[in-house]
Amino acid sequence: MKVQVVGFGGLGRNLLRLINEKNGMIVNSFGEKIDVVSVSDRSGTVVTDGMPLTRIIQAKESEGLKALDSFEKMSALSAIRDVEADVVVELTNSTSDGHPGIDHIMRAFEEGKNAVTANKSTLIVEPNIMKVAREMRMDLRYEATVCGGIPVFNLMDYSIRPSRIRGVDGIFNATSSFVISKMEEGNSLEEAIADATRIGLAEKEPRDDLEGIDSARKGTILHRRVFDSDFSIKDADISSSVKEMAPGRRQVTVVGDRGVKVEYSAIKKGDIFGNVRGASMIIRFDTDTFDHITLFTDHDGPLESAAGVLNDILLMMRDR
Amino acid sequence: MKVQVVGFGGLGRNLLRLINEKNGMIVNSFGEKIDVVSVSDRSGTVVTDGMPLTRIIQAKESEGLKALDSFEKMSALSAIRDVEADVVVELTNSTSDGHPGIDHIMRAFEEGKNAVTANKSTLIVEPNIMKVAREMRMDLRYEATVCGGIPVFNLMDYSIRPSRIRGVDGIFNATSSFVISKMEEGNSLEEAIADATRIGLAEKEPRDDLEGIDSARKGTILHRRVFDSDFSIKDADISSSVKEMAPGRRQVTVVGDRGVKVEYSAIKKGDIFGNVRGASMIIRFDTDTFDHITLFTDHDGPLESAAGVLNDILLMMRDR
Repeated sequence: MKVQVVGFGGLGRNLLRLINEKNGMIVNSFGEKIDVVSVSDRSGTVVTDGMPLTRIIQAKESEGLKALDSFEKMSALSAIRDVEADVVVELTNSTSDGHPGIDHIMRAFEEGKNAVTANKSTLIVEPNIMKVAREMRMDLRYEATVCGGIPVFNLMDYSIRPSRIRGVDGIFNATSSFVISKMEEGNSLEEAIADATRIGLAEKEPRDDLEGIDSARKGTILHRRVFDSDFSIKDADISSSVKEMAPGRRQVTVVGDRGVKVEYSAIKKGDIFGNVRGASMIIRFDTDTFDHITLFTDHDGPLESAAGVLNDILLMMRDR
Repeated sequence: MKVQVVGFGGLGRNLLRLINEKNGMIVNSFGEKIDVVSVSDRSGTVVTDGMPLTRIIQAKESEGLKALDSFEKMSALSAIRDVEADVVVELTNSTSDGHPGIDHIMRAFEEGKNAVTANKSTLIVEPNIMKVAREMRMDLRYEATVCGGIPVFNLMDYSIRPSRIRGVDGIFNATSSFVISKMEEGNSLEEAIADATRIGLAEKEPRDDLEGIDSARKGTILHRRVFDSDFSIKDADISSSVKEMAPGRRQVTVVGDRGVKVEYSAIKKGDIFGNVRGASMIIRFDTDTFDHITLFTDHDGPLESAAGVLNDILLMMRDR
């Protein structure tokens, strides 16, 4: 199956490494391999033409894609139009307005290509791309956007399909949990944030993570999907200010039919949410047929997110 | 899609109730309904011919299937041979040798029908029915056999597909957890077992549950599936005797490349397994790409198992 990768940061490189490692197994299971036919970043596009994926990763990590012979100053949008492929994998960074990610996905659909995205912002803007995909009868998968290392959307599609989901809650932001875990070990808020930044978990400007904006984005995606809504993040109740961060609390996101709420809640003794420490994450589905189902990951990082993207690609391969 | 139900105890009735309740949603999502064309129990078979499912449930709960006009003294094996259908749903009870459940599944395959089973014993005897299904190119699904209310096998098939699973562990037996939870509240072992029996959780003879045989069966199914093995329950290390039951411990099953082990282990403070109380269950996958993924259900009962069976049927419907 021919796949185009658009956006080539850490997640994209992890994905290429994983495809390289797993293609043998994939051929055994599905009868064909994943053929990465092009890789685009802001500088241009490499049409791979069977080049080893490791060479593309190496180039990106040294002089950039432009070092490769087959590099062209072709934009991602042009590559989606002009390079033959089945699936576009959209891995650009989230932006405030969802562009250019959403343009890549729209272009893919116009070209009759299905899309996988790990870019949260594409799923929370207008038009509602989930509905656009349905109307255009194209497949859009986005497992890695919410709790990268935990199956969320494909759990809904394939594992709890008979259920009506009444609500979802969880702890979706690893940085805030890490910082509070450090505070629980006796560090000040400032020391804890500095620690998170030092290990590369927190961004230089960690407000989005610590004030609940990142969680609200994930809550918005979940609301749109679970309730088939056009929920806007503007309507989310984000009560999670940094000054609420304290030992014994976690940044909890609650998604229900009335909307999305993010706040630092005290975790009761014995509550399974109390197991979230460091970079772990948890999500709990309230269903009419499976009672509550809770999923927990010890670690949510770029490898886990790349595996989520790869799983989406394999689901599309399975449906061919 | 035409479905035959074989074995009609509490799980079968829950399944028919659920199909009745969900068929509208199923038609909306899949374009066809689940048509239960026959129901067999030990007394014989009802060919439903569009009869309301509620009438079949009512008959079973009063005078038995024989009260229905369309009842025939036709065995399940004959029904599988003679009634036209796509899928056989095998819900007879586990037995020491896997019969007659495994005969129903074999007959289904011979007739070109796929099979869903909730009968653990069919999956741990010889021949290894998982391998038979593969050789005959038939679909066999068995989600409800291990932790009914938790997605296990379809998680492997659809959600963590890129992963190599290095091992699985968990607490798979609700009765033993319930009994120890009661002991933690100050009851004696005998009082706790009596309580479990009173609420219908423990069998009259709860040895299989309390001594780890039930968990070893589930571990054997997992080993065969995860490692594509012919593991025999005779080779399981079952160190979980009732006298090991004590506050702070849980009946933990460990499935690894070296085999299956069941024992009452002390749960460390802060370990997520410590959240298992009452009739809850937990399972943890150790994977090469998603780190550890843990799934937890608050409650594992016949409704949750029926939903697992229904999900299997829907996966087959999706693949038509």
